[in-house]
Amino acid sequence: MIKVSVFYRNQSGSRFDADYYLSVHMPMAAKLLGRAVKSVTAEIGVSGEAPGTQPAFAAIAAFTCDSADDFLRAFMPVADRLQGDIPNYTDIEPVIQISNLTEFPIAPAGNADVKSR
Amino acid sequence: MIKVSVFYRNQSGSRFDADYYLSVHMPMAAKLLGRAVKSVTAEIGVSGEAPGTQPAFAAIAAFTCDSADDFLRAFMPVADRLQGDIPNYTDIEPVIQISNLTEFPIAPAGNADVKSR
Repeated sequence: MIKVSVFYRNQSGSRFDADYYLSVHMPMAAKLLGRAVKSVTAEIGVSGEAPGTQPAFAAIAAFTCDSADDFLRAFMPVADRLQGDIPNYTDIEPVIQISNLTEFPIAPAGNADVKSR
Repeated sequence: MIKVSVFYRNQSGSRFDADYYLSVHMPMAAKLLGRAVKSVTAEIGVSGEAPGTQPAFAAIAAFTCDSADDFLRAFMPVADRLQGDIPNYTDIEPVIQISNLTEFPIAPAGNADVKSR
């Protein structure tokens, strides 16, 4: 599984309309990309590691697909519409990355003692 | 739902041992953090937007939790063990961010025509 991530750096003086992004842009992206995409998420930065500090990114969108080719086939026909919507919510130039995604099993119930070993 | 992300920037001249990270460090993190964590993923950077270009990040780890407090309660007792393992796979200083996570519904089967409207 691959993940296509779209990073919006948290830049001083830039604008990012999280309401528009979450209520208009991302639902439109999920709809336009269609079934090639297995999951669609958006992260809105809250803080850095310490509470109250600035997050490195204002937002990050992520799309998982079976392959980068699958994503590109779905994305290219709608790229103009999606990219044309960006000025409606931000003036930050997004950075895009394609990664290989690995999911790890989480601890089963009753295994909490591993925390204190 | 919140997401704690750990970003390793892809820096020229730095090392990142993806095999160790995926086979030793991340499974250890999933085990030590225990049930406070709802999902654990790791991304290994493949490329930027265009095939063959350098990705912005060598790797990104992500942990989803009900709240930042839940994460910190699970993380603090094991922080030394997890952070002490970092030199075993990289010399990149990680950047940590806490975000609010939103998942979007994907297009249902049979709705592929939205792609070409």
